[in-house]
Amino acid sequence: MRTIEWIEQTNTVRMIDQRLLPGRFEYLTVKDADQMEKAIREMAIRGAPALGVAGAFGMALEAVGNSHLSKSELVVRLKHAAQQLIAARPTAVNLAWGVNQMLEIVNKEEIKTEELVPRLVSTARELAEQDVETNLKMAELGASLIEDGDTIIHHCNTGSLAVVDWGTALGAIRYAHEQGKRIHVLVDETRPRLQGSRLTAWECEQYGIPYEIITDNMAGYFLRSGKAQKVFFGADRVAANGDVVNKIGTYMLSLAAHANRVPVVCVFPLSTLDITIETGDQIPIEERDPREVLNLSVNGEPVAPENATALNPAFDITPHHLISAWVTEAGVIVPPFPENLSQSGYNRGLGKK
Amino acid sequence: MRTIEWIEQTNTVRMIDQRLLPGRFEYLTVKDADQMEKAIREMAIRGAPALGVAGAFGMALEAVGNSHLSKSELVVRLKHAAQQLIAARPTAVNLAWGVNQMLEIVNKEEIKTEELVPRLVSTARELAEQDVETNLKMAELGASLIEDGDTIIHHCNTGSLAVVDWGTALGAIRYAHEQGKRIHVLVDETRPRLQGSRLTAWECEQYGIPYEIITDNMAGYFLRSGKAQKVFFGADRVAANGDVVNKIGTYMLSLAAHANRVPVVCVFPLSTLDITIETGDQIPIEERDPREVLNLSVNGEPVAPENATALNPAFDITPHHLISAWVTEAGVIVPPFPENLSQSGYNRGLGKK
Repeated sequence: MRTIEWIEQTNTVRMIDQRLLPGRFEYLTVKDADQMEKAIREMAIRGAPALGVAGAFGMALEAVGNSHLSKSELVVRLKHAAQQLIAARPTAVNLAWGVNQMLEIVNKEEIKTEELVPRLVSTARELAEQDVETNLKMAELGASLIEDGDTIIHHCNTGSLAVVDWGTALGAIRYAHEQGKRIHVLVDETRPRLQGSRLTAWECEQYGIPYEIITDNMAGYFLRSGKAQKVFFGADRVAANGDVVNKIGTYMLSLAAHANRVPVVCVFPLSTLDITIETGDQIPIEERDPREVLNLSVNGEPVAPENATALNPAFDITPHHLISAWVTEAGVIVPPFPENLSQSGYNRGLGKK
Repeated sequence: MRTIEWIEQTNTVRMIDQRLLPGRFEYLTVKDADQMEKAIREMAIRGAPALGVAGAFGMALEAVGNSHLSKSELVVRLKHAAQQLIAARPTAVNLAWGVNQMLEIVNKEEIKTEELVPRLVSTARELAEQDVETNLKMAELGASLIEDGDTIIHHCNTGSLAVVDWGTALGAIRYAHEQGKRIHVLVDETRPRLQGSRLTAWECEQYGIPYEIITDNMAGYFLRSGKAQKVFFGADRVAANGDVVNKIGTYMLSLAAHANRVPVVCVFPLSTLDITIETGDQIPIEERDPREVLNLSVNGEPVAPENATALNPAFDITPHHLISAWVTEAGVIVPPFPENLSQSGYNRGLGKK
């Protein structure tokens, strides 16, 4: 089961529509960059690595649909699509990374029109395959940090649904579970979009991993009372100094873990590392529609006054000193992050090459 | 408008049914200890100070309804009711405090049967009046800590609805607003029961205080980015060493404020101080029904898998070193709390006398 996949027969992209889970499991088919942008914006597809692939697929779809154009017309069309796709979600760098992989090909002058379209499609499909490979490697490395008997607090969704397959932080947990380690997950519900209770809980059920849902504000209670041994999450963008921008709530969770000496493990592919950004504070934080905070109901009753207003920053910044370890395809990296990543033999810019 | 009130004509207790807000404003009438226990357990009435009055009123109702019994029979009946009422919510000490105020009278051997019932009713009504007086004093003192232009993060509901009138933390905010200070409140929605978005937002609208609702996990983002100058909340029980047990989420909020040098102000009447308990870790934490975490829906869709399980601790423990100031009727107290409370001229046990 792939979260997002190129369908060869129809030259379309099929994805699990994550707006409908856990109530309904349905696929959404996307045919051009416009539809892909909408799917990304409305979070039918989400998760930093999956967005990287979605961005690349969006470009490939646009190329296929416009293959009748001259090369110069096609290049203009694709550059426009690139801007449109990148603007759909400004925080996760993988989306821009995936789109830019395609733009590099578009910008190669020596490629002829008839080669360009199939080349974009095949490269996008390779990115999707690489994603699975990278994830499996991270899952294995991350699992090495999980001990038999651990209770792990997990934030947002970082499983298969956040990538093409396996996942980042939840991939490591799943790998440890498949190794036979007895683990237990406390699933942060992850307000406001509830990716934890909607998606991570659903994935835990698919894999048979024991879990309980908690509200985000309960994590501190379990950390302080010694009931959790690890905190795992992913990342939407990591700055050169190691600051992590991730789903809103990650910062408070990391503070609570750090205050109680519980290791904080951040799992992400190197395509999430943005060496062009010095610190987390320089990363743009997406502000989403306040209705995402207010549109809940309990037993059919509203949970806020009719005219209530809300704020909805979708991400926050966790300073690098709160993070105990990175898990990337380059290995498990401990602080100081930039120096130790370099020493691992991987170039910091690898993810961007 | 009183949150809870003795109705003289009918010898019943009328309260605002907080299960229905903000959708509907309705009163609930309670006639005996059984009905009061149910109202407390289901949180038709909540908030530590209001629970103190509710406990006393529950005892008074039970006395009125059994005034035909002999004194010894009535004493047995009332001792049973006391146990039942106290067990309804184990964490907030005010409930036990209010009930015990009544038991002290019940246990006075010199009081005759015909005096006992009216004495319980009049004492319970005095407690309700004292609550308003104490709250107004705390509101004035708390407001002195709020500066013109402050943005204040507020957790749970601590307004009129949590007491008889005025409130603790929100009472101070309301007082500052009525003094003409320009303030802005970031209302933590306060999962899982959403007392923030349901009740505090509703109260802010009644008083004309500008506010926005945020999810609990966003507070760290606003604190770290310098957008909030104060954190205000109440308390359900305060231990002798100054540790605060309050609504789940208070600990993570306090950690985030402390990490960003934002003052953390805890407003409570001395009846919330339990000098029989050395530290917060010895205070029982109520575990509520997991369905309170899982019973949300968004656009009619479930937000968790059908068979999902959840944990639901209703309170957490904030160590005293994270608290910048107490506001009590004895004044504004800064650390070290026990020593400075003694020096204020108030006895630590005052709230229990």
